[in-house]
Amino acid sequence: MSNTIGIRFQVTTFGESHGSVVGAIVDGCPSRLPLSASDIQSQLDRRRPGQSVLTTSRNERDQVRILSGVDQGLTLGSPIALVVDNTDSRSVDYQAIQTIPRPSHADLTYRLKYGLTAASGGGRSGARETIGRVAAGAVAEKFLAVKFGVQIVAWVSAVGEREAPDMTGEAITRDQVDATAVRCPHAQTAREMAALIEAAKKDGDSVGGIIACVCRNVPPGWGEPVFDKLSALLARAMLSIPAAKGFEIGAGFAGARGRGSEQNDMFVLKEGRLGTRTNRSGGIQGGISNGEPLVFRVAFKPTATIAREQETVDYAGRPVKLRAQGRHDPCVLPRAVPIVEAMAALVLADCGIQNAECRM
Amino acid sequence: MSNTIGIRFQVTTFGESHGSVVGAIVDGCPSRLPLSASDIQSQLDRRRPGQSVLTTSRNERDQVRILSGVDQGLTLGSPIALVVDNTDSRSVDYQAIQTIPRPSHADLTYRLKYGLTAASGGGRSGARETIGRVAAGAVAEKFLAVKFGVQIVAWVSAVGEREAPDMTGEAITRDQVDATAVRCPHAQTAREMAALIEAAKKDGDSVGGIIACVCRNVPPGWGEPVFDKLSALLARAMLSIPAAKGFEIGAGFAGARGRGSEQNDMFVLKEGRLGTRTNRSGGIQGGISNGEPLVFRVAFKPTATIAREQETVDYAGRPVKLRAQGRHDPCVLPRAVPIVEAMAALVLADCGIQNAECRM
Amino acid sequence: MSNTIGIRFQVTTFGESHGSVVGAIVDGCPSRLPLSASDIQSQLDRRRPGQSVLTTSRNERDQVRILSGVDQGLTLGSPIALVVDNTDSRSVDYQAIQTIPRPSHADLTYRLKYGLTAASGGGRSGARETIGRVAAGAVAEKFLAVKFGVQIVAWVSAVGEREAPDMTGEAITRDQVDATAVRCPHAQTAREMAALIEAAKKDGDSVGGIIACVCRNVPPGWGEPVFDKLSALLARAMLSIPAAKGFEIGAGFAGARGRGSEQNDMFVLKEGRLGTRTNRSGGIQGGISNGEPLVFRVAFKPTATIAREQETVDYAGRPVKLRAQGRHDPCVLPRAVPIVEAMAALVLADCGIQNAECRM
Amino acid sequence: MSNTIGIRFQVTTFGESHGSVVGAIVDGCPSRLPLSASDIQSQLDRRRPGQSVLTTSRNERDQVRILSGVDQGLTLGSPIALVVDNTDSRSVDYQAIQTIPRPSHADLTYRLKYGLTAASGGGRSGARETIGRVAAGAVAEKFLAVKFGVQIVAWVSAVGEREAPDMTGEAITRDQVDATAVRCPHAQTAREMAALIEAAKKDGDSVGGIIACVCRNVPPGWGEPVFDKLSALLARAMLSIPAAKGFEIGAGFAGARGRGSEQNDMFVLKEGRLGTRTNRSGGIQGGISNGEPLVFRVAFKPTATIAREQETVDYAGRPVKLRAQGRHDPCVLPRAVPIVEAMAALVLADCGIQNAECRM
Repeated sequence: MSNTIGIRFQVTTFGESHGSVVGAIVDGCPSRLPLSASDIQSQLDRRRPGQSVLTTSRNERDQVRILSGVDQGLTLGSPIALVVDNTDSRSVDYQAIQTIPRPSHADLTYRLKYGLTAASGGGRSGARETIGRVAAGAVAEKFLAVKFGVQIVAWVSAVGEREAPDMTGEAITRDQVDATAVRCPHAQTAREMAALIEAAKKDGDSVGGIIACVCRNVPPGWGEPVFDKLSALLARAMLSIPAAKGFEIGAGFAGARGRGSEQNDMFVLKEGRLGTRTNRSGGIQGGISNGEPLVFRVAFKPTATIAREQETVDYAGRPVKLRAQGRHDPCVLPRAVPIVEAMAALVLADCGIQNAECRM
Repeated sequence: MSNTIGIRFQVTTFGESHGSVVGAIVDGCPSRLPLSASDIQSQLDRRRPGQSVLTTSRNERDQVRILSGVDQGLTLGSPIALVVDNTDSRSVDYQAIQTIPRPSHADLTYRLKYGLTAASGGGRSGARETIGRVAAGAVAEKFLAVKFGVQIVAWVSAVGEREAPDMTGEAITRDQVDATAVRCPHAQTAREMAALIEAAKKDGDSVGGIIACVCRNVPPGWGEPVFDKLSALLARAMLSIPAAKGFEIGAGFAGARGRGSEQNDMFVLKEGRLGTRTNRSGGIQGGISNGEPLVFRVAFKPTATIAREQETVDYAGRPVKLRAQGRHDPCVLPRAVPIVEAMAALVLADCGIQNAECRM
Repeated sequence: MSNTIGIRFQVTTFGESHGSVVGAIVDGCPSRLPLSASDIQSQLDRRRPGQSVLTTSRNERDQVRILSGVDQGLTLGSPIALVVDNTDSRSVDYQAIQTIPRPSHADLTYRLKYGLTAASGGGRSGARETIGRVAAGAVAEKFLAVKFGVQIVAWVSAVGEREAPDMTGEAITRDQVDATAVRCPHAQTAREMAALIEAAKKDGDSVGGIIACVCRNVPPGWGEPVFDKLSALLARAMLSIPAAKGFEIGAGFAGARGRGSEQNDMFVLKEGRLGTRTNRSGGIQGGISNGEPLVFRVAFKPTATIAREQETVDYAGRPVKLRAQGRHDPCVLPRAVPIVEAMAALVLADCGIQNAECRM
Repeated sequence: MSNTIGIRFQVTTFGESHGSVVGAIVDGCPSRLPLSASDIQSQLDRRRPGQSVLTTSRNERDQVRILSGVDQGLTLGSPIALVVDNTDSRSVDYQAIQTIPRPSHADLTYRLKYGLTAASGGGRSGARETIGRVAAGAVAEKFLAVKFGVQIVAWVSAVGEREAPDMTGEAITRDQVDATAVRCPHAQTAREMAALIEAAKKDGDSVGGIIACVCRNVPPGWGEPVFDKLSALLARAMLSIPAAKGFEIGAGFAGARGRGSEQNDMFVLKEGRLGTRTNRSGGIQGGISNGEPLVFRVAFKPTATIAREQETVDYAGRPVKLRAQGRHDPCVLPRAVPIVEAMAALVLADCGIQNAECRM
């Protein structure tokens, strides 16, 4: 396994869905950063289950405790240990999966790799693993905000076939995002998305979607070509999120259909610095931030756990009909918003620190 | 900069477009692997410029030399140094860019980060940097083929708005791919793609597109959750390629529009192992290979360098009209095919080695 | 800060001396290894304070809890989180050090680096940080014992000027080591060492010493030249222990005084393999284990905290007389024995895993 | 194999003793550093064979070529490729070792690990591998000198039983060191050392010794506890040098014999900063530089290759008498001086860069 991300701002997550705790260690956070549990709790609250009818009914308060690395409200420069208790695990719900690998879940692959049917409910592949990411990401975000003024805002831009208009050019705030349970700042689309999710839920089914993310005030120069291009690190961070299946930066896949004369971003003078008139590059050129907002999108598949009957086979290869009993989200998108923001923050904090000494 | 990729099969590339050489060091390749320059040369030949009217007229033979790590046709376990000479660099073509940052190029960001207008022609951000990747990737591919029987084949699946039917389910060979200069195995689409590229070239313009890649015989269990999920590592590797703007695995963005009941891959018994009836997961579940073929796509933007006049500004912010003079590809896709294959091979070789000792 | 060691068997420690907990995350331990808290507790008990009159009177039970990574007595392959509560921290003892940097302590350097007078009592530089090492090391040791039969035994070979005869050629057991409070298996020397420590204690002073360590049954082939030579990794691991000031492998510094004809180890046939008649190399040649026992020594300086008055200056540079009030060990050596063993285990577990796929 | 050292100032070496080249890639060197081949050549000249009767007669000019990363006398921020040709390899000298592993050499361990009797003459374990280190170290040294004023000077402090007085408190220069062929700045001892080496040579034997190294003007705050303590990184770097068997910092092993009241370094006010009256810590406390000179020593075993007959066994275990025919140094110490300096520079450059962003 590889549960550490980052080179200089380095985060290690731990804990299984149905063990006693989940958490993260943040190593490399500069000292003297003001930090309290409430800085972290706000993002955990946005991630936690049970926020609305659109999400799983698993009930976790997800209160974070800071076990080390902070003293008298300031980071010490030492590892920051963050822990959240698991209080509502019901492993009984998951007994069936000891004999039947759930389709499009990690049950089979974990068993093939590690030689045992790990902890029930997915262990490390379940959604609770992302708590450590969100907690650590909140530390990164605080660092980025205090030191550089970086602002990161993600939202649900598509659910199933319902897609919101492109709002990446607007200065969307988290308040606007949180105005609807589905976390789409475009009110009309948000209503339609919610209806779509509820319809899927009623059918015992699930839906996928897309999250858009914009990072403002990222200083130019971040990203370490050639292999640690900022776009490459973001892609890796996003695809490491459970259920993520696609990533695109700037114009992405749509831009691949166009011509250079339409897609190039012309330079203009902006408040004393060179900026670009358009931002089809998504704020990154040659793998390095150019001072424009970072803009990217992440595609999530529909939740694999569904209440509808599925014709599959058990570990012995015998045909079975499987109908999920555990609690689950009909659509992970609303709760994935703070996870996307967290992963973006982790990448940016690491790049920001690495950029410090790139030239004489 | 960060010019090293991989943890156990570790590759470092070096060399500027207009310096004397480009190359790579491969560290961590197991000893006793049969390896000769010809194993590497074949992929370099597929990458090199001047192969057809569809590509740049820059003329490089790109002959690789193995400077270390191989003795009497076998790898030694020590670092394999691979070098290719730059023989046709014409830095004179690139004088204009000393004063004008080319739109959607890395000129400005490199200057902002490193404090100098690096070498002309892009230095490390130019296409020649990928020679080191392709050379090292060929070593990884040899290792994967000999040790595990892995086969990697990529092709151009879209150029501009012209998209080939999905052929990822067929056992496409490199011969089929190379049957057309545009490297699309679907003959009718290939003709239309070629026409589209030639039209763009005539207009002094460029086009983008998509490359599909399939990796067969990847053993189950590869990939290191949670952050080094196989899908995450592939995403990072692909987005580190110049001009790459998007990545999707399996059903990707399209799958995000569907429902769980349509997108899940049901298990079936296949020759004594559990396989899946469909492969919307793209061969990866929970970040770990499941024994099905890996299937992913990479989006490339249109070449930023175009002969058409662009209204931009120089480094001083003064409006200028820029018309590129250097040689360039109207479409990078055909030459990017071996690069995508190389990056896939680098990721897989590293994962294969890391998987060796994951359980008692 | 950098609180992670290892590439494939990777350990991150966390927690300050006077915070609520100390602990470690072990990532990369193979799945299906039998593991329980008692495997870990035995080494923590050997490390904990208050074992005898020779050690600090700080009273900590140091009971380890396994928070993740183990289910039904087997490792899952996921990160193993280990936590020990701090129950007897008395930060009041350490008030003086807010204004006066203790000589030969890390107070000043931490303040210069991190910009604050961290947590009292040394924070991360204090002895309690080593709990995470010992806990993680016990996991590594279990893995090494079960998988390879590796046995690691360290002991106190010198205290001050009192040095035991060389016993590295004998199969010393931990029982023999623990037979005396000073942890020297040579009974007569042990008595003299104890007297020497007690004399120093009575004088309000402290003494240093040397720990010898032997690792048996290490398979040949471990170590990754050229920079991760086994000897180099051991040196780094040992010098990372608080108060460690020197490391030597095999004949070490004494061997540097000899001639090649005396120092070379001649090969002989041993039970079907090539072994060496002598072991001046300490089990490593060219940075790779050769199948003979690993033999190395670590020098520790005298405890910096002493009760005798020291003429030094405060942070403002004003002359002061400092007399330590906190509890402290007059000699760290007896308690450092399990720490040295732990660090050796961490290095070996990582090398053993890395060696798995070095050749075809 | 692991041929890369450093996290941010990262060096990869490559090339076998008897292949066509040896060299190094330096990645992470800040841009805009003035750098030319002559900066590097001077240290290579100090390392190269054939400098005096005290060293091997192998004749290599060891001229370095900079293949990338430098343009118009300035570093670009991109990887700096450094190559030196092997011009005097005589693999014929080494035929015997195909059947007989040389005692205390890496022949057997390489064969056990990599499954083949690598290149003759040691391949990667031979002395020529250190050329890459010295070349890369010279780049690090230039960076450290220009950016921080760091000065690194090593010398031979002991040969066999002949030990020079401690001169680490004096500001020894490289000119003083190079005044004698043996590279000991204490003239009387240097003469005796030379006699001792010549006597060993005449006997077909070899001698070991100790190198002392002092690094001045290292800013306080360098080193990343807990595992990347500056002392730990130096220990690892030094023990990675061929034939190195021991490392000590400051008072080291001798200090372990003393009492705390004698060994502690009292603080004093020095030109506006807190310094220490004595420097038994060797410039490092808690793993972090304190502003005093770094002082450490490295023990080297006698050259394993000797002309005297050795009674050993061949790979089949049959008793043989071996008498080395190849050229070799009767004492590696004089040529190891620039290697020790190079490894110190690599560690310091990496720590200096990492220290840049440790606090708000």
